Amino acid sequence: MKLLREKIQDEGIVLTDGVLKVDSFLNHQIDPKLMKAIGCEFARRFKENGITKIVTIESSGIAPAVMAGLELGVKVIFARKRKSLTLTNNLLVSSVYSFTKQEENTIAVSSQFLNASDKVLIIDDFLANGEAAKGLIDIVKKSGASVEGIGIVIEKSFQKGANELKELGVRVESLARIQSLKEGQVSFVEDHEDVQV
Amino acid sequence: MKLLREKIQDEGIVLTDGVLKVDSFLNHQIDPKLMKAIGCEFARRFKENGITKIVTIESSGIAPAVMAGLELGVKVIFARKRKSLTLTNNLLVSSVYSFTKQEENTIAVSSQFLNASDKVLIIDDFLANGEAAKGLIDIVKKSGASVEGIGIVIEKSFQKGANELKELGVRVESLARIQSLKEGQVSFVEDHEDVQV
Repeated sequence: MKLLREKIQDEGIVLTDGVLKVDSFLNHQIDPKLMKAIGCEFARRFKENGITKIVTIESSGIAPAVMAGLELGVKVIFARKRKSLTLTNNLLVSSVYSFTKQEENTIAVSSQFLNASDKVLIIDDFLANGEAAKGLIDIVKKSGASVEGIGIVIEKSFQKGANELKELGVRVESLARIQSLKEGQVSFVEDHEDVQV
Repeated sequence: MKLLREKIQDEGIVLTDGVLKVDSFLNHQIDPKLMKAIGCEFARRFKENGITKIVTIESSGIAPAVMAGLELGVKVIFARKRKSLTLTNNLLVSSVYSFTKQEENTIAVSSQFLNASDKVLIIDDFLANGEAAKGLIDIVKKSGASVEGIGIVIEKSFQKGANELKELGVRVESLARIQSLKEGQVSFVEDHEDVQV
């Protein structure tokens, strides 16, 4: 997605070889117009899949997920992150390790909002090691619903998440795919199917 | 806002005399179409105020705030909640007590996204005791920006927040105002100026 790649080049800050900060439009300040374009692009890529529900995770997944939900005409569920789980009643839970924060979190979705007939699109802001995505897949599968695919705003293709998800047979659609953050520069994976958007 | 009041009547669950659960469309599952209508209504109410930025708080404020930001053509910043504050560099911080969770949280916004020329609309999902709203006002004022008003999705008018904010001279626009949750019933404040929406 050209608009997104340009935004990353213009405003992204490379903190280390592994960390890209996009606080000016995605992770702290949000650019609603860009979120709408992102939502429309997710909707375009998954419009043939009969999506009935979007699942994301708080907080940075919410804006792109809601815009995609608006475009696809489906509701969005955001998984809650909890350090410790006090309420287990009617919750689908999974465990997610954060490499950035070096801590284990429980993520949870209320079972009343997902059922076996749902066809779910999972959306998240970043894909790095794939821990959050795998946790969300786990939760969706526990509900009996099917995972139709994963929509990612920014994929760090040099980390293992994207490949691991594809090996699990999950369709991954990432709107910007970063090949490297070395020497403070963002370089993208060449993405021929993506040139038009 | 009639559409919102109907949604609360249809799907809201009164847990106690003080607690209304709206997990099916606002706080866990999100209804994007309703969020768009809410965003448009906030934009309508504040369109004469020259808003340059919206400030909200993770996680449930994000969806309505982003829709309002899309409609007003301004960016949205969501304050981060932190139990303990490790990074204080360039952060505007305030302390917020949660009556629900009975704990003190630090909320933070990066100072680079707010400046003295900004005219800020604060948006949040609920207004009860006004702690979160007062924390957000504090942060905006620390940046030197002006608070043009506060947009609330659901106000619990029987709690002290709305009155306290008005006493501070802050304009509060709540799209649904709840008078009472007694006996498991939601009753709304009669709101004559609001009959048309």
